[in-house]
Amino acid sequence: MKKIVTISREFGSGGREIGKRLSDVLNLAYYDEEIIAEISKETGLSEDYINNISEKGIYPVAFNFGRTFASFGNLQLNQTEILVKQQNVLKKIADKGDCIIVGRGADITLKDYNTMNIFVYSDMESKIKRCKYKAKEDEKLTDKELEKKIIQINKDRKKFHNLISNLEWGDRNNYNLCINTSEIEIKEIIPAIAEYIERWFRRKI
Amino acid sequence: MKKIVTISREFGSGGREIGKRLSDVLNLAYYDEEIIAEISKETGLSEDYINNISEKGIYPVAFNFGRTFASFGNLQLNQTEILVKQQNVLKKIADKGDCIIVGRGADITLKDYNTMNIFVYSDMESKIKRCKYKAKEDEKLTDKELEKKIIQINKDRKKFHNLISNLEWGDRNNYNLCINTSEIEIKEIIPAIAEYIERWFRRKI
Repeated sequence: MKKIVTISREFGSGGREIGKRLSDVLNLAYYDEEIIAEISKETGLSEDYINNISEKGIYPVAFNFGRTFASFGNLQLNQTEILVKQQNVLKKIADKGDCIIVGRGADITLKDYNTMNIFVYSDMESKIKRCKYKAKEDEKLTDKELEKKIIQINKDRKKFHNLISNLEWGDRNNYNLCINTSEIEIKEIIPAIAEYIERWFRRKI
Repeated sequence: MKKIVTISREFGSGGREIGKRLSDVLNLAYYDEEIIAEISKETGLSEDYINNISEKGIYPVAFNFGRTFASFGNLQLNQTEILVKQQNVLKKIADKGDCIIVGRGADITLKDYNTMNIFVYSDMESKIKRCKYKAKEDEKLTDKELEKKIIQINKDRKKFHNLISNLEWGDRNNYNLCINTSEIEIKEIIPAIAEYIERWFRRKI
């Protein structure tokens, strides 16, 4: 059985770190921003632009064509087309073999692939703490500003999810495991999650 | 740090089995129906009667006094009083030491005890399969009857939860880990959950 793990995550909850660490421990290919890069390559649109659409479910105001613009024939590419491209990229990735995919609605797009779906979340205090810890020196925000940013990004992710699915983003019923990372140091729980994943894929159906 | 694990669970999802097996592996005291027996002992009301109130959040129609009725002085014990007794029993249990408590709203009642809270759930198909597997020869129900029973019991648990808390029963934000047992053989995932619990209690706060 192919092992494909999707990780959906609230912004600030450490979902990406979980994905990266699990891919190391389980020796699985890891996809996150790589998906954006691939779509950018295929379409000639800038990664920033793709990123804006990729998990937001809204059509961004500013167009942001990438450097490969000249080689890109169709200027009319709209949000739906980008999302279709994203879904194709996700399927190509899944067809390649075992992997961990973070975000991009992979749980929905790959629902026929027998993926194991994880949702990572945490309380606001932990989210703010994590964002502050990861922030570069030149992008320090106050707690209030951070909270506003976190709420907005998670609202966007929810919207994006509703665009591609009838299932509610973050509804536990759509996931095989939901992990609350409040007050937790991610690396400490990785071995247990890794073992859970191994066992989940060995399960009898 | 005291290790108290609470397990809330949808009926039919294998939550009790998870609790029992974890208590063996982790060498923790286990409480489930023991709580009912203790309240029954304290009040003189029958275990059936307590059980009816314990997780339903409704006042049952039929009174069902137990054998120790004669030694019980107060006939006016109402639902609220039973629930208060239940909460006292839960606190007594938690004060005793490390343990796993299944159901009875322990996650809410013991919120000041730094408990680790787990929610166990599954899809209806798995619930029906599990119930059928566990059913005694003389209580075989059809799939339809089972589904009706499962939905009703889970409705009752939700109602009970709403009675003692403003938090929504099954809302992932109230739990540290939510485990979907659909298509899973419980005993296979126990070592991974046990390790997760061990690591969770070792976490830095």
